[in-house]
Amino acid sequence: MDLDPVIHAPVRLRIVTHLDTSLVDPDDEVTFPRLQRDLELTAGNLTTHLAKLEQAGYVATSKTFSGRKPVTYVRLTHEGRAAFHTYRSALLKLLGE
Amino acid sequence: MDLDPVIHAPVRLRIVTHLDTSLVDPDDEVTFPRLQRDLELTAGNLTTHLAKLEQAGYVATSKTFSGRKPVTYVRLTHEGRAAFHTYRSALLKLLGE
Repeated sequence: MDLDPVIHAPVRLRIVTHLDTSLVDPDDEVTFPRLQRDLELTAGNLTTHLAKLEQAGYVATSKTFSGRKPVTYVRLTHEGRAAFHTYRSALLKLLGE
Repeated sequence: MDLDPVIHAPVRLRIVTHLDTSLVDPDDEVTFPRLQRDLELTAGNLTTHLAKLEQAGYVATSKTFSGRKPVTYVRLTHEGRAAFHTYRSALLKLLGE
């Protein structure tokens, strides 16, 4: 019974849990600043952990422009949602839930 | 909402969860070899993580002799059990349970 270390790290666990509950449809996405505010993380911390999640294929980011301002959007991939649900049931089982 | 890193590390989470469920009374203890077998860990891995839990005051170990053979016993301290229950409810809350 392995707990996916990409998800298990506390900050990433908070990020993925938040994305899983707030982005219900597969195409739902959230802006980086909004995610940063919701999770009360520094931009640097969020960037570091999103990079790790993106490297694993669990989140996808896209950049667009709002006027001349670049905006980064974050989305939970199908693979990320599936990995989180597998992780979550393994953890709940471990905790005897 | 912080997840106690002493407990959150996957191997230690398995150790503490196992001790919390298998050692019901405060004075209950388990031998090192039995714990090692139950958790399917190497002696080195179990020793490393027990040391970290003991340093935090979450487990206590004692050594006695069975005949001429030294036997190490492991016990979950009151503080360890309380820390685990706090950790567990924070984690379940995060997972929306």
